[in-house]
Amino acid sequence: MLARDSGNAGCEACDRVSVPVLRQRLFATRRLSSELAAPLSPEDQTVQAMDDASPTKWHLAHTTWFFETFVLKPHLPGYRLFDERFPYCFNSYYEAAGPRHPRPYRGLLTRPSAAEVADYRSHVDEGLDRLLSGLGEEIDLAGLIELGINHEQQHQELLLTDILSLFAANPLRPAYRAASGPDCQPRPTTATTGRDWLSFAGGIHSVGHTGAGFTYDNEGPSHEQLLRPFRLQSTLVTNADWLAFMTDRGYETVEHWLADGWATVRREGWQAPLYWEKREGAWLQMTLDGLLPVEPAAPVSHISYYEADAFARWAGKRLPTEFEWEAAAAEATEENTLATGALRPRAAQPGPSRTPRQMLGDVWEWTQSAYAPYPGFRASAGAIGEYNGKFMVSQYVLRGASCVTPAGHTRRTYRNFFYPHQRWQFTGLRLADDH
Amino acid sequence: MLARDSGNAGCEACDRVSVPVLRQRLFATRRLSSELAAPLSPEDQTVQAMDDASPTKWHLAHTTWFFETFVLKPHLPGYRLFDERFPYCFNSYYEAAGPRHPRPYRGLLTRPSAAEVADYRSHVDEGLDRLLSGLGEEIDLAGLIELGINHEQQHQELLLTDILSLFAANPLRPAYRAASGPDCQPRPTTATTGRDWLSFAGGIHSVGHTGAGFTYDNEGPSHEQLLRPFRLQSTLVTNADWLAFMTDRGYETVEHWLADGWATVRREGWQAPLYWEKREGAWLQMTLDGLLPVEPAAPVSHISYYEADAFARWAGKRLPTEFEWEAAAAEATEENTLATGALRPRAAQPGPSRTPRQMLGDVWEWTQSAYAPYPGFRASAGAIGEYNGKFMVSQYVLRGASCVTPAGHTRRTYRNFFYPHQRWQFTGLRLADDH
Amino acid sequence: MLARDSGNAGCEACDRVSVPVLRQRLFATRRLSSELAAPLSPEDQTVQAMDDASPTKWHLAHTTWFFETFVLKPHLPGYRLFDERFPYCFNSYYEAAGPRHPRPYRGLLTRPSAAEVADYRSHVDEGLDRLLSGLGEEIDLAGLIELGINHEQQHQELLLTDILSLFAANPLRPAYRAASGPDCQPRPTTATTGRDWLSFAGGIHSVGHTGAGFTYDNEGPSHEQLLRPFRLQSTLVTNADWLAFMTDRGYETVEHWLADGWATVRREGWQAPLYWEKREGAWLQMTLDGLLPVEPAAPVSHISYYEADAFARWAGKRLPTEFEWEAAAAEATEENTLATGALRPRAAQPGPSRTPRQMLGDVWEWTQSAYAPYPGFRASAGAIGEYNGKFMVSQYVLRGASCVTPAGHTRRTYRNFFYPHQRWQFTGLRLADDH
Amino acid sequence: MLARDSGNAGCEACDRVSVPVLRQRLFATRRLSSELAAPLSPEDQTVQAMDDASPTKWHLAHTTWFFETFVLKPHLPGYRLFDERFPYCFNSYYEAAGPRHPRPYRGLLTRPSAAEVADYRSHVDEGLDRLLSGLGEEIDLAGLIELGINHEQQHQELLLTDILSLFAANPLRPAYRAASGPDCQPRPTTATTGRDWLSFAGGIHSVGHTGAGFTYDNEGPSHEQLLRPFRLQSTLVTNADWLAFMTDRGYETVEHWLADGWATVRREGWQAPLYWEKREGAWLQMTLDGLLPVEPAAPVSHISYYEADAFARWAGKRLPTEFEWEAAAAEATEENTLATGALRPRAAQPGPSRTPRQMLGDVWEWTQSAYAPYPGFRASAGAIGEYNGKFMVSQYVLRGASCVTPAGHTRRTYRNFFYPHQRWQFTGLRLADDH
Repeated sequence: MLARDSGNAGCEACDRVSVPVLRQRLFATRRLSSELAAPLSPEDQTVQAMDDASPTKWHLAHTTWFFETFVLKPHLPGYRLFDERFPYCFNSYYEAAGPRHPRPYRGLLTRPSAAEVADYRSHVDEGLDRLLSGLGEEIDLAGLIELGINHEQQHQELLLTDILSLFAANPLRPAYRAASGPDCQPRPTTATTGRDWLSFAGGIHSVGHTGAGFTYDNEGPSHEQLLRPFRLQSTLVTNADWLAFMTDRGYETVEHWLADGWATVRREGWQAPLYWEKREGAWLQMTLDGLLPVEPAAPVSHISYYEADAFARWAGKRLPTEFEWEAAAAEATEENTLATGALRPRAAQPGPSRTPRQMLGDVWEWTQSAYAPYPGFRASAGAIGEYNGKFMVSQYVLRGASCVTPAGHTRRTYRNFFYPHQRWQFTGLRLADDH
Repeated sequence: MLARDSGNAGCEACDRVSVPVLRQRLFATRRLSSELAAPLSPEDQTVQAMDDASPTKWHLAHTTWFFETFVLKPHLPGYRLFDERFPYCFNSYYEAAGPRHPRPYRGLLTRPSAAEVADYRSHVDEGLDRLLSGLGEEIDLAGLIELGINHEQQHQELLLTDILSLFAANPLRPAYRAASGPDCQPRPTTATTGRDWLSFAGGIHSVGHTGAGFTYDNEGPSHEQLLRPFRLQSTLVTNADWLAFMTDRGYETVEHWLADGWATVRREGWQAPLYWEKREGAWLQMTLDGLLPVEPAAPVSHISYYEADAFARWAGKRLPTEFEWEAAAAEATEENTLATGALRPRAAQPGPSRTPRQMLGDVWEWTQSAYAPYPGFRASAGAIGEYNGKFMVSQYVLRGASCVTPAGHTRRTYRNFFYPHQRWQFTGLRLADDH
Repeated sequence: MLARDSGNAGCEACDRVSVPVLRQRLFATRRLSSELAAPLSPEDQTVQAMDDASPTKWHLAHTTWFFETFVLKPHLPGYRLFDERFPYCFNSYYEAAGPRHPRPYRGLLTRPSAAEVADYRSHVDEGLDRLLSGLGEEIDLAGLIELGINHEQQHQELLLTDILSLFAANPLRPAYRAASGPDCQPRPTTATTGRDWLSFAGGIHSVGHTGAGFTYDNEGPSHEQLLRPFRLQSTLVTNADWLAFMTDRGYETVEHWLADGWATVRREGWQAPLYWEKREGAWLQMTLDGLLPVEPAAPVSHISYYEADAFARWAGKRLPTEFEWEAAAAEATEENTLATGALRPRAAQPGPSRTPRQMLGDVWEWTQSAYAPYPGFRASAGAIGEYNGKFMVSQYVLRGASCVTPAGHTRRTYRNFFYPHQRWQFTGLRLADDH
Repeated sequence: MLARDSGNAGCEACDRVSVPVLRQRLFATRRLSSELAAPLSPEDQTVQAMDDASPTKWHLAHTTWFFETFVLKPHLPGYRLFDERFPYCFNSYYEAAGPRHPRPYRGLLTRPSAAEVADYRSHVDEGLDRLLSGLGEEIDLAGLIELGINHEQQHQELLLTDILSLFAANPLRPAYRAASGPDCQPRPTTATTGRDWLSFAGGIHSVGHTGAGFTYDNEGPSHEQLLRPFRLQSTLVTNADWLAFMTDRGYETVEHWLADGWATVRREGWQAPLYWEKREGAWLQMTLDGLLPVEPAAPVSHISYYEADAFARWAGKRLPTEFEWEAAAAEATEENTLATGALRPRAAQPGPSRTPRQMLGDVWEWTQSAYAPYPGFRASAGAIGEYNGKFMVSQYVLRGASCVTPAGHTRRTYRNFFYPHQRWQFTGLRLADDH
């Protein structure tokens, strides 16, 4: 979902948020985007390494366009567009919002400059400030602003994954962040921590979002699902696990693979997760801190659905369904997200656990569930309705959150989704089994 | 699923079939394949019009190879291969059965000739005859032969759909069958027959195959699904309905389409179902009887999942899930299959109905269900296990049967599957709605 | 040029041919086409192995269409088209003659059948017979018929090269002709025969066709070229020579290659001429007699311009210009063409030579000359003018003839042309050098 | 040729250049590159709009790498590489100089930054300064430095054409240069100036470079060519001429086109020269001064060989050969090159002329000559030998110079070359005819 601009609808409780709180969250989010771009040169901010990714500058401008188009233009009397040519440049995929610059050419926009985009951001921030100053009980508007905040948070995650793809394509393998702090060195390799199989009862479970708080439209309607008893591992599959799969010729053994997966492995020459490279016999991994040794106890990341599925088959297990995951996440709390500053998945803390760990953070977890509408789902009207519904084919649901998901942008009902071949996000897996 | 060679496993009751009955069914099936090829010249039998399709001759040889490889070679002492080079030529996709001729080049096999393939069939039939003569209580063998029969039935359907694609690509638009009989003329256009919305209760339903009789492995394990109350139309969406969609600019209106669907419509220039063409202002449709006027009351056919979904959205409805379909098909019986000789979808008989009609016959019906394993599914060991499981990604389930499905090759638990862009099968839809 | 339908114009002397002679040549040519197709099954005649090649049946029909369209339709009063749909099917590339079936789909034309095409041929032959019976002094018509004969001869060569490409793509590696006769076994390997460097004086030479007899428009206008003294080898580069190039890592050494050639070698994985394959350590070559050992003393064949150029550079020599070749061919006579029945290049007879041998026969010889119009060239008006002129870009001239060129279809002024990457014709080379 | 790094060899007279003069030319050239990049932001300098083009920053670094690799590293004792990773980043295509970053990914190099590249340039300039200070009579070295100067001049032209392609792909259509000065406005539209046909005698002409001064290896050996009497237009084909061709349905009339050209027109949808766009009924053209009205009297530019050839055929004329052009250019002098500052082609001055005008400047002129080696041509040994020779296939020669060719980088023997479909250079044409 992060590759798009996720949509909303049912924020029934957004009105309960006070305007000062909303204002604080809004500008904190806006500020964070600029801070994330700060280590990047104007050049770094301009380029996209592949069609799936977007330039930093585009993320900064597009999130601003979103507020301008859906909040300021219709709701702030007298608002003037910063530049009449920008909507064409910075619309992502909203057909209802007019024609747009093609995605693969976003990286050609050397103009407007980074400085002009900063001015654009200021201009829109001022508009938002004016609008919020005059805001009373406008429920819808609060919902829209909340959507804009969440939208921008998604693009913060993308900004980082897209920069990683750019720097990984650079022969200099630059680091996004100077690798100085304590977080930047791989932790001492601990033996794989004890991993438990946790059991969950079957029966009718309620899934999907209920209650107050912001939520995307694809998380509802809340409804019932019948689960069978199942088991889930307490922690994520690690790099050490993955190396065992590789050593056992996992990438060369057709039996483990879905037919489409095998065709992809052959065509693309996959032999390891994305961003892994072997130098002088050792596996290294490109990270936001540059090229580092693969850390055995850390969760494996940057794998496709095909690889996750093949690994599970090799292990004699399976991927969970998204509903099993949601049921198991009843008590999950945020762990290693953007807020920790680690910027990469970290090894689980040792020790037994009654409940699954690493659920909201580290890596998005592939489920075996195809991305589909919940029963009774209806997309919102207008451009906002294009946020989620039109992608509900051929993609697979990922649950959880990653090490670059902004704090507060996690929910146990959150449904992320990507095509089964995509690998540039922080994507990993957790094994499931029948009881 | 028809594009592959669907697999088995759980034929627990196959042993109850007596050998004479099995022998009768086996050779009737073998004979039917030859009869289906009879109207075709050696040239017609050699060519494939696109990568998805296979030549007739290849179907005839491949189904024979299946019996030779999985039945005769391991189970008939002293069996000698007809030609040691044929396994390479006629293996479809069984990795465990050795290397194989690439699918897109099947149409280059002008040798072996049609006559040699006929000899190959005779050779294997003789072997099967010898094997069956000595057969006692070998349960597994009966199951394997049953699988071979079902496999060949699937290829009979494919043989016809693939010939249709070949003749549709020929500027002469040849007819597979001389258009003389009563079935070959479109029926008089009746006004759309009364179509009813039938209501079904929610609750926990058992789905998947149980009891005696042959079944593919993907139809099990039988398990429970929780359904919500739903409604289903008593008959299929018709060509008249589809023309209304087209007239209402359905192919030009982005709002109806999934994002992938819209991209496909634009790239491929789709403006109507496959095989439709406009001549002098009238819509014609290429059929196995040649180019005929589109029959308004007949079910629409040769549409992709994308189109089915867009139509449903345009109509304000949705596609059924595969479980809803199965529940509604409790009392379904075969209607217009290959046995009727119509060779194309036919209009539903007028009159009200308590139960849905046109369920097993006419066209395969797209469901909104992604093709996935049932809970507890395990693929069989060995090459036979490649039959179904390895395709369980990115495809969508179709239920029912078509006008070219062999009689007896239908089940309400049958799960057919294709990619969402594919259109060369007899594929249509039936609308569903929430209660 | 053979891949097209070469054109005419300047047959100033065609009128001197008596009608009986013309009639004899016409029907002998028409008969030869049918004879060449005789060893082929209807299936073999239907398929094309690649876009560049055409099916046998298409060659048979297209040459017939040429006579029907350009000779009978305009010149035989009362002529009726055999089938009004055939012009669409069998036009090759004449824009002026109306729309046409796309080249890559020629192999889908399982209808009309081989038998119907035979009827088509008879129908047109009868028309030609009637026309010739009434023919007096119609000069233009004789020229047109002569063009049709030459056109059909070109397609006879193509028919054989295209069948070779089809059979080479068949895992059974069928032989076009039963390998029984004395010509079908490779000759005993003789040591490479003595090869001489022949010297030619420089100066102003007249090139291009003059005098009586049929000629294509691209062979004129005759004009003068200034040549520098040069040397030419008396015989063609052999397979033994080529193996030395391969052993010396010719295909792995970038220095020998043009940049486009090297990119092609890498992308296509070329390691030997087309149709060569290594089995159990020995190089075999697919031929019209099936898979045979590579014969060292025979001329190398099925190489691209890129390979010819790389070989010459490796050898420290160069390719001749087309004008050098023509000057050196002053006394050349037909050697190993279709008339010998060898159907593949043969080793040169041993012994010294004052004049170059193997000039008109064995293989077409790549020259370094880009295919361009001669000074003063003007294409004929109308469809016939599309024969040659519109291909005069990005192709290279080959001179001589091959082992499958029909007897009588050779001239020392003949200009054949192909793209530098093409290899499916009988194409080889002869080395040249400055004096 | 400009898309590569044109090569040298036969600078027999370079030693006669005094070291002070060489030093002056060297640093003036180095300075000009930096000045050309000055109007561009770091973002502008980083991106490439298509595979054929390179980023400004890459041009700046690659020309520097050329001096470092071929001059400093082998000839300046104690020279240390600025950065050991740069050779991989900035080698263009010299196989002999080691592996290199793939061309299509040059635009991903956001690092090294523009500032680091500036440091790289300074570092190498210092090395060159040291080297020149110690230079005595080293003939080879002077030749190498001269080659480096010419190489950098070629990249100056490319820098500008590549920036134009980048800005043309930007929806803001930025101007490279602020459109303020007198040169930036299209001149008043004059009626097409009188254009004369100039006659030239035939006979044996000497072509190719002779005498003193720098020259690329592909301009020799000097040799004789036999010309027939011909005529050439005194001025270039103009935009007004081109509009007449368009109005006469030139892009829709198959008869004018080479077969490959027509296929390209259809596939790419060409309807006008590159960079032309119609807004509100008027044709505009993207230029280095932004989007401006098409100026009727200015030479047409940004056309492919296919278009030039089709235009000539439409006009009933032809393109000149490169030898005709060279013979006609005997007295040509530089006109509108980079030195004039116009940055776009300009209308010819009115008035009759005895000799052709606009020969060295405005646009490169397509000739009908395929790019091929001159008789006796041998590429230099080593990496430098890759400069020109390996491109001598499938490309066509352009003669003259363009409005962005650096002053002093023109010669009447200069052979530029591009593929027949390429259009992003300043390419136009001049009509020729037989006498």
